[in-house]
Amino acid sequence: MSYSQGDIFVGETIGTAILILFGAGVCAAVNLKRSKARSAGWVAIAFGWGFGVMAGAYTAGPLSGGHLNPAVTVGIAVDTGEWADVAVYLAGQFVGALIGAALTYVAYYAQFAANSDPADAQPTLGIFATIPEVRHPVANVLSEIVATLALVLPLLAFGLDDGIGESGTKTLLVAFLVVGIGLSLGGPTGYAINPARDLAPRAAHALLPIPNKGTSDWGYAWVPVVGPLVGAVLAGLVFNMAF
Amino acid sequence: MSYSQGDIFVGETIGTAILILFGAGVCAAVNLKRSKARSAGWVAIAFGWGFGVMAGAYTAGPLSGGHLNPAVTVGIAVDTGEWADVAVYLAGQFVGALIGAALTYVAYYAQFAANSDPADAQPTLGIFATIPEVRHPVANVLSEIVATLALVLPLLAFGLDDGIGESGTKTLLVAFLVVGIGLSLGGPTGYAINPARDLAPRAAHALLPIPNKGTSDWGYAWVPVVGPLVGAVLAGLVFNMAF
Amino acid sequence: MSYSQGDIFVGETIGTAILILFGAGVCAAVNLKRSKARSAGWVAIAFGWGFGVMAGAYTAGPLSGGHLNPAVTVGIAVDTGEWADVAVYLAGQFVGALIGAALTYVAYYAQFAANSDPADAQPTLGIFATIPEVRHPVANVLSEIVATLALVLPLLAFGLDDGIGESGTKTLLVAFLVVGIGLSLGGPTGYAINPARDLAPRAAHALLPIPNKGTSDWGYAWVPVVGPLVGAVLAGLVFNMAF
Amino acid sequence: MSYSQGDIFVGETIGTAILILFGAGVCAAVNLKRSKARSAGWVAIAFGWGFGVMAGAYTAGPLSGGHLNPAVTVGIAVDTGEWADVAVYLAGQFVGALIGAALTYVAYYAQFAANSDPADAQPTLGIFATIPEVRHPVANVLSEIVATLALVLPLLAFGLDDGIGESGTKTLLVAFLVVGIGLSLGGPTGYAINPARDLAPRAAHALLPIPNKGTSDWGYAWVPVVGPLVGAVLAGLVFNMAF
Repeated sequence: MSYSQGDIFVGETIGTAILILFGAGVCAAVNLKRSKARSAGWVAIAFGWGFGVMAGAYTAGPLSGGHLNPAVTVGIAVDTGEWADVAVYLAGQFVGALIGAALTYVAYYAQFAANSDPADAQPTLGIFATIPEVRHPVANVLSEIVATLALVLPLLAFGLDDGIGESGTKTLLVAFLVVGIGLSLGGPTGYAINPARDLAPRAAHALLPIPNKGTSDWGYAWVPVVGPLVGAVLAGLVFNMAF
Repeated sequence: MSYSQGDIFVGETIGTAILILFGAGVCAAVNLKRSKARSAGWVAIAFGWGFGVMAGAYTAGPLSGGHLNPAVTVGIAVDTGEWADVAVYLAGQFVGALIGAALTYVAYYAQFAANSDPADAQPTLGIFATIPEVRHPVANVLSEIVATLALVLPLLAFGLDDGIGESGTKTLLVAFLVVGIGLSLGGPTGYAINPARDLAPRAAHALLPIPNKGTSDWGYAWVPVVGPLVGAVLAGLVFNMAF
Repeated sequence: MSYSQGDIFVGETIGTAILILFGAGVCAAVNLKRSKARSAGWVAIAFGWGFGVMAGAYTAGPLSGGHLNPAVTVGIAVDTGEWADVAVYLAGQFVGALIGAALTYVAYYAQFAANSDPADAQPTLGIFATIPEVRHPVANVLSEIVATLALVLPLLAFGLDDGIGESGTKTLLVAFLVVGIGLSLGGPTGYAINPARDLAPRAAHALLPIPNKGTSDWGYAWVPVVGPLVGAVLAGLVFNMAF
Repeated sequence: MSYSQGDIFVGETIGTAILILFGAGVCAAVNLKRSKARSAGWVAIAFGWGFGVMAGAYTAGPLSGGHLNPAVTVGIAVDTGEWADVAVYLAGQFVGALIGAALTYVAYYAQFAANSDPADAQPTLGIFATIPEVRHPVANVLSEIVATLALVLPLLAFGLDDGIGESGTKTLLVAFLVVGIGLSLGGPTGYAINPARDLAPRAAHALLPIPNKGTSDWGYAWVPVVGPLVGAVLAGLVFNMAF
């Protein structure tokens, strides 16, 4: 299916904003002290991100097919050899992720404001961007490669010709695929598996006036960009060979 | 698809009663001391509300399309410009929500009765209506606006022409959308995202003979009405522009 | 759709055996001390029963439509006025529930055997049959009536003409409906919502050589029979009036 | 539907590798100390395995139908009487399971490396292979037989003619069936229900240079092979008689 570049940009912007609102939202919900969902745990985080992909992909479906992730866009381009719209997809994804991060800040404004006592402040970066549990750049990149391979290879097999978000059943499969990756492969790095999902909210974290927000940890920012892109290229190559 | 006003009223009444029975029910299940599900936590609450929307919307589908929420009805009206049936939808939703709250009281009668020692009584309002975690009216309204936008914009994109509850797959998507909103955006205010869901059960709380029930907190009651309606109008406008 | 009485009996027997194996199984998994899933909590129990309904109903679908529950059979009969096959359905359901309870005992044999020290023995009835959290017969019956109404009314609306288990999407809806009832309405009595689900496994509990099994509590056994049947009749009447 | 033997081998290898990556991955995620998902509990494990089956089966669907499990392959062969491709299926499944276990080691490399202090080391076999909670060979085999029967009988009824992974809805049913088995019947032995899932990752555990990995417990390795195969044969026979 073919979309106009204007629709692609609007669709990816809206869809990725919804994705990040749900994803950063559930991290805020589970981690911030004055949230009703505090300590709901990793199961909540995995399902929150998965249903965010579902909501964003299905909303964006008619406009852009609902990639919401440069790794998905690149994996499809490697598989099909068509690169013409890739830049427009990526632009929409980064703009959308910035908007989603800002909306999360709005939704949790009172919770962030309650983090104003320096003696008692929680770090807030983990709500917006990924932080490895053990800092080991090679292992962290490998974790992101494997997790992104586990995302993009099935996505390609799910049949992307008509878009991820064009069919309700397919969107459910994608949602639960993302939940599964969170549960199974999120342990080491917090599973970026999506460069836009990490880089843009990290920038939002740096820019937003969050009290006592702590570091934005730019030294790690390349890992959740490089790992997912390598994983996506691998997925495209494996898919092309096997199918 | 077009429904008779009689069917709309009956469908929305039955569907919203089922929704509130499940939603207030899971809050009773998790919060009341003498319940088997006590301390099942936020994941249980999010899935309970989501499956309540599924059960109510699919049941009401053939009669009214299964809105069950003034924010959904208003969002559709803003998008389509058709306001003729809005009042009937809202009437059914409020009557249904009252019935659902009363049925929850019946189902948990022995648990409420066990709350009869004033020295040891739990507050009960949170079972029926929302209470913000941090009381900050502007932030609370903003939280409800963002969460309702995250509900109604995808719902409009899911294609409401033929009703939420007409197709099983679509109803599953809506269910998990609501679960996702609960997990991701329920932390600040307990996610009313539906004026009928909050106002009518709050009235039921005030009217029912619940032992040691505590305050019905009417000072907060405007927030979960105004926030969702503003969010719904925004969703209708964004949808109209983008799609 | 019409099934032969032989197929009905075989389908309901196999389907209900699967349902009870999953349902009693998850109660054993969560409650027995020497189980890997011990203290997985109420969310596990609700999903275990729901997926048991899914597995049993979809398996039985082509043979009998997959009722697996006298309340469902009776609700359909009240709605349609056709009572000819009701007795065969019920016979299959009770035989199947007995088999499912026995298979649960086999699957958890080592766990039950580990319960052999009287000083340290756990009660085991809760694995097979329901026990109210607060013993109050009127309130307990009311809880079962409301929960069964919340099961059977949506089931009738889901369109039972072609059987619960004939369509995959419909079976998913039924599964999550049952999960939702567990989360939302299981708190007071442990949600029998199915006379066969309670009575036959209670008999199995009385008959099986379980070490230190404790009482089978026959004084309560009428509640999870009468409540669900009353709820089913109400659901059939409401459905007939409204739709 | 009929597949070429080359496609069967490639499909089963890729699909089973994905399955084991998710399944061993979630066990690593929940059990290893330096994982973000540590102590997410049994619900996470059950959903992780279920969504792994979904991802692997749907990916492998067009190539091989997506069995991913010798018990499924044998159950179908007993039912249909066609054994010609069984050996190719099994070869792909074992090779895929080895690859999946190795990818899990890569994804969790830093976590395994952090297990390097012998005084504080965790056992690691449970990440790759099953360990009974109570060691009792007869009971353990019976548990695996019952759990595999509960897997393969519904799978046969779900209609395998066109492959598990050919239809999205069917793949969702299979996913939740596996989640349900994990919740309900995983308590005694950790539910191998699949000889390839246990034997190949156990071999990987023996071969991989995991620090302080502890025993590979080969004395138990026959149970998760024999139990699932007996359960599959029983399921094929019951299905053939009843349907």
